[in-house]
Amino acid sequence: MSELIPLPETLVPFLCSYLPHETQWKKDGDFSRPFVTLTYAQSLDSRISLSSGVQTVISHAETKTMTHYIRSKHDAILVGVKTVVADDPGLNCRYVSQVGDDVHSIRPVVVDPNFKWFNDYQNSKLHKLYLENKGLPAWIIIGDHVKLGSEHEKFVQQTQVKIIQLPISLDDGKISWLDILHFLRSEKINSVMVEGGATVINKLLTFKPVIVDSLIITVGPVFLGSQGVEVSPNGKVNLKNVKWWNGIQDSVIAATIDN
Amino acid sequence: MSELIPLPETLVPFLCSYLPHETQWKKDGDFSRPFVTLTYAQSLDSRISLSSGVQTVISHAETKTMTHYIRSKHDAILVGVKTVVADDPGLNCRYVSQVGDDVHSIRPVVVDPNFKWFNDYQNSKLHKLYLENKGLPAWIIIGDHVKLGSEHEKFVQQTQVKIIQLPISLDDGKISWLDILHFLRSEKINSVMVEGGATVINKLLTFKPVIVDSLIITVGPVFLGSQGVEVSPNGKVNLKNVKWWNGIQDSVIAATIDN
Repeated sequence: MSELIPLPETLVPFLCSYLPHETQWKKDGDFSRPFVTLTYAQSLDSRISLSSGVQTVISHAETKTMTHYIRSKHDAILVGVKTVVADDPGLNCRYVSQVGDDVHSIRPVVVDPNFKWFNDYQNSKLHKLYLENKGLPAWIIIGDHVKLGSEHEKFVQQTQVKIIQLPISLDDGKISWLDILHFLRSEKINSVMVEGGATVINKLLTFKPVIVDSLIITVGPVFLGSQGVEVSPNGKVNLKNVKWWNGIQDSVIAATIDN
Repeated sequence: MSELIPLPETLVPFLCSYLPHETQWKKDGDFSRPFVTLTYAQSLDSRISLSSGVQTVISHAETKTMTHYIRSKHDAILVGVKTVVADDPGLNCRYVSQVGDDVHSIRPVVVDPNFKWFNDYQNSKLHKLYLENKGLPAWIIIGDHVKLGSEHEKFVQQTQVKIIQLPISLDDGKISWLDILHFLRSEKINSVMVEGGATVINKLLTFKPVIVDSLIITVGPVFLGSQGVEVSPNGKVNLKNVKWWNGIQDSVIAATIDN
């Protein structure tokens, strides 16, 4: 795993008002759910990878550092199961403001309705980081239709993973986002950073009521092409409180969703 | 037609090295064609309009002024016929550096292989601007399979349009981009600004040899959604000489295509 480069100083004031704060949450008084920050890196043509299952570097090292800085401000990081299967991400936080400081522990949360990750978990980078004391075990949110048995009990003992079963919709086989967020809040997760993948992002961008409190998107100067995995919601989404930051290579937009 | 707002001063140095100059063209010594600037405005999800045929405002007034400033540095402006039919654009230049200065005359060039524009031309904004002495008549590039008759002769007399017939490919019914550019150069067009639409942009981004000398894209802080008209080339395109500029609302990237 590559070392992070120093955080560009100008990113701190740029991001400040888009990050969760104990005293001043920007969301409109709905404390039944955590503060939600949606963040990802895309190409100019709004692709987050070259093709399904192919991890693609889009952003510069400084925006990678930014991601870990943002993680340091959140209690949990959430991704869909397709992303963990495709990218095998670490989902930990490596940012420290000063050398020698403890790193922030962030809880990885994976939404995995059919528990597809079960067989691969113990080979995952995430689990290895946990064994090296560099990250927390995951919370895996699965549907209540999955039958759990002794193999799952053993899995939990071995990995310290928490398996959460939530109702699955009979309509679309999905778990309700509100159920997920209410559960996280009940577990004292006050802020969650959602990092993808495309299915999750597209859904959250148009979710009503709006549950995304901050949007932080890195745009890399490349076209990944029409075969890439695309972010584009099912309908128009207007933004407000828009700010842009320019790095060595990338541009970053921070904004909130207009209701 | 709305008045342009003043050009943000920082755009002049930002754009300088991406614009054609008589003495220092950035293209690699190929003087058989004009300098080509590709420019358009897109949403975050790389849409240039909400749906086919729907003109959609994406960029702020200041980047609209930028577009007219860029036009003032070019001899011609080129678009595909779908764009003129959908948007009925003026395709003139309204930027002046000082009040009272003459506006720059830019030649509108429309690529229209099957001459679909023929019936609508006289009702177009472009023709009206010509009649008001605010723009030049178009050059319309059509395929050599179109049979021209006396109605076309009359049309030319009435509109002062120039009809250019170029060979059409038997493979795909298209006119060769190199033929178009060589023709323009032979007519003393030393610089051409290509403004769309999506078909033209996607084609030019991956065209080999690279014929786009500068790329200037405005990114507006909105998602137009998956039903929108998309820019995404057929394959990965790397960029170099990347610079970003931030306006009140939009971010602008200027770059060149990496061979």
